[in-house]
Amino acid sequence: MAMDTLPASDQRRLDELYEYIDTQSKTFIGYPCSQQFDYTPLFRFLNYPINNVGDPYAPSSYRVNTKEIEREVIQWFAELTHADEKGYWGYVTNGGTEGNLYGLYLARELLASGMVYYSEHTHYSVSKNLRLLQMPNIMIRTLSSGEIDYEDLYETIRIHRDRPPIIFTNVGTTMQQGVDDIPRITSMVHELAIPQFYIHCDAALGGMILPFIANAPTWDFSAGIDSLSISGHKFIGSPIPCGIVLAQKRHVDRIARSIEYVGTLDTTITGSRNGITPLFLWYAIRKYGIEGFRRMAQQCIATAEYAVEAFERIGIQAWRNPFSVTVVFPKPLDTVQKKWQIAVQGQIGHIITMQHVTRSMIDELVADIEAASVGEPVK
Amino acid sequence: MAMDTLPASDQRRLDELYEYIDTQSKTFIGYPCSQQFDYTPLFRFLNYPINNVGDPYAPSSYRVNTKEIEREVIQWFAELTHADEKGYWGYVTNGGTEGNLYGLYLARELLASGMVYYSEHTHYSVSKNLRLLQMPNIMIRTLSSGEIDYEDLYETIRIHRDRPPIIFTNVGTTMQQGVDDIPRITSMVHELAIPQFYIHCDAALGGMILPFIANAPTWDFSAGIDSLSISGHKFIGSPIPCGIVLAQKRHVDRIARSIEYVGTLDTTITGSRNGITPLFLWYAIRKYGIEGFRRMAQQCIATAEYAVEAFERIGIQAWRNPFSVTVVFPKPLDTVQKKWQIAVQGQIGHIITMQHVTRSMIDELVADIEAASVGEPVK
Repeated sequence: MAMDTLPASDQRRLDELYEYIDTQSKTFIGYPCSQQFDYTPLFRFLNYPINNVGDPYAPSSYRVNTKEIEREVIQWFAELTHADEKGYWGYVTNGGTEGNLYGLYLARELLASGMVYYSEHTHYSVSKNLRLLQMPNIMIRTLSSGEIDYEDLYETIRIHRDRPPIIFTNVGTTMQQGVDDIPRITSMVHELAIPQFYIHCDAALGGMILPFIANAPTWDFSAGIDSLSISGHKFIGSPIPCGIVLAQKRHVDRIARSIEYVGTLDTTITGSRNGITPLFLWYAIRKYGIEGFRRMAQQCIATAEYAVEAFERIGIQAWRNPFSVTVVFPKPLDTVQKKWQIAVQGQIGHIITMQHVTRSMIDELVADIEAASVGEPVK
Repeated sequence: MAMDTLPASDQRRLDELYEYIDTQSKTFIGYPCSQQFDYTPLFRFLNYPINNVGDPYAPSSYRVNTKEIEREVIQWFAELTHADEKGYWGYVTNGGTEGNLYGLYLARELLASGMVYYSEHTHYSVSKNLRLLQMPNIMIRTLSSGEIDYEDLYETIRIHRDRPPIIFTNVGTTMQQGVDDIPRITSMVHELAIPQFYIHCDAALGGMILPFIANAPTWDFSAGIDSLSISGHKFIGSPIPCGIVLAQKRHVDRIARSIEYVGTLDTTITGSRNGITPLFLWYAIRKYGIEGFRRMAQQCIATAEYAVEAFERIGIQAWRNPFSVTVVFPKPLDTVQKKWQIAVQGQIGHIITMQHVTRSMIDELVADIEAASVGEPVK
């Protein structure tokens, strides 16, 4: 069968789209996604129908897969987040939503009468997940830092002590990168003498920053959590959204048993699964290693500090949480928002100083904000 | 920050994996995934953090996206499946599981007291979806063709007339590519005077074959279905699992309204979404068009016919459904299963004559089966 060629008008559209994306990428400062990646040496794998269908630890007759690589990626994250050497299970997901959905699903299967608590600043996809899973839930107030309001959480759990709490925590909220104090939350639950509870941690961005910063708070499996989700397309960077989910293996085994009953050992949310993104993550991990990521995290934090100072120099009150690369400031004018792709919520906006964000980008943004405030057009 | 290089041992592992995958692809005949694709001209897009976050029809401040391309892909599938010109909604998914999950989720939101019916030969991921969604369900027997047992379905719906039926249909079951007679099912429901019902169609493979074959059965929106899912990595071919889901827009609008209540218009299951696979699908659609896909479908059917005859020549009873590229035959010996990556179920095995499957591959497989049956080793 002859391969037809693409019509010239379509070829032009592709070129225009490419130019557009390239242009947009130059002012890409409002999202927590690194642009500093280069997976060119892996593109040759895109000529095969790779599929990591089902459980990464189960054999498959579909042998065009990268499950061995995927397991190594999961192992690396398990070590990074202090999971028990033999006691974890996980897989490479299509992104944060799937990882959080998996954690909540696991919690629901384990604690059928559970009540989910999550803070107001939790990513909006979590409400959607809870609806999908039909899990009863209560939204808790958020402190100005973006952390969950511990007193509100305590009081609310206390009132519902008859139901096992399922606490959805954030290690980095979307808008302010607020980090929930997980040890404080667990001791709170213990203080209420509640025997059964579940803690899931959405560490989309923070899960790849906190491990590399000195004196960062304890948040991972060492703090007693049951599952966590970390994005791959955020700090590591990827042209395709992806992430990892990790959970206590004993929980997954309980679910796996019940699924076996319906005739399959399929434990992942998605059936046919991307086998390219595990390769991307593996490649980045092998290329940079802990030391490389540490340097990156330190650089990003330094850029964030620089940004806070740059804002302050023009009299704009900006701030950031400790260990955070998210700089929060008053919502800028529309022209600035548009040019710099800045997501706003209520009266605040933020930028996120990922690896590709340079000091000269910050300078240009700050100059744009200053110009816009006196009515000059943003270039 | 200097880009570290990949250690030599890791580079070797990548090369070995590449060789392994390339070797496996030469005997890739047991799965419904075409290997005949070439997206090389699109690889340049993999240098950007593309993300089609949220609804493809909603604007996003994340402008590094391909949503316009995605909408064109959805429009093409809407026309192909006779959706009402202004009355559809859809998006590019991560594959069949997500499309089927979406359809079932929509059905649950619309018909809270609904009962799901699906045939025994339905893909195993559907049981998982039903569990995730906590939807009451009844499995219906399957006919020898792989179609749902219409009498069993009729009787079972009749007994549960008090609950709106949600019928999960297959246009191509996994093992035998059996096609449910959707017009027969809808008239059955009408005959029972049931006012409210929902039909989802899993057309993972068949959705890209039936439209291109003369006199194929009516199965799509013209048969009155409510939603459908078609895979992108199967007939079209893609190195990354993907697909599309399409639904009646009026259903989606009802869900969207309720989600707005929780503060978001986010209508897709996944939040951050792959923006590369819509490009792949668009590229294939523009390159081949309806005529190109028609030629492919005819070629695949011809290869399937050839395979049935080749099996018969060595005295093996093989068969295929009309309009089907899946050739079913008695489960082969382990060595043959392994070499040709053949999935088996009970006493049967199958091959699927996708675009890349040549007559000489069929000849080699048949020779291997013949050799194995007399105790000769499979090469």
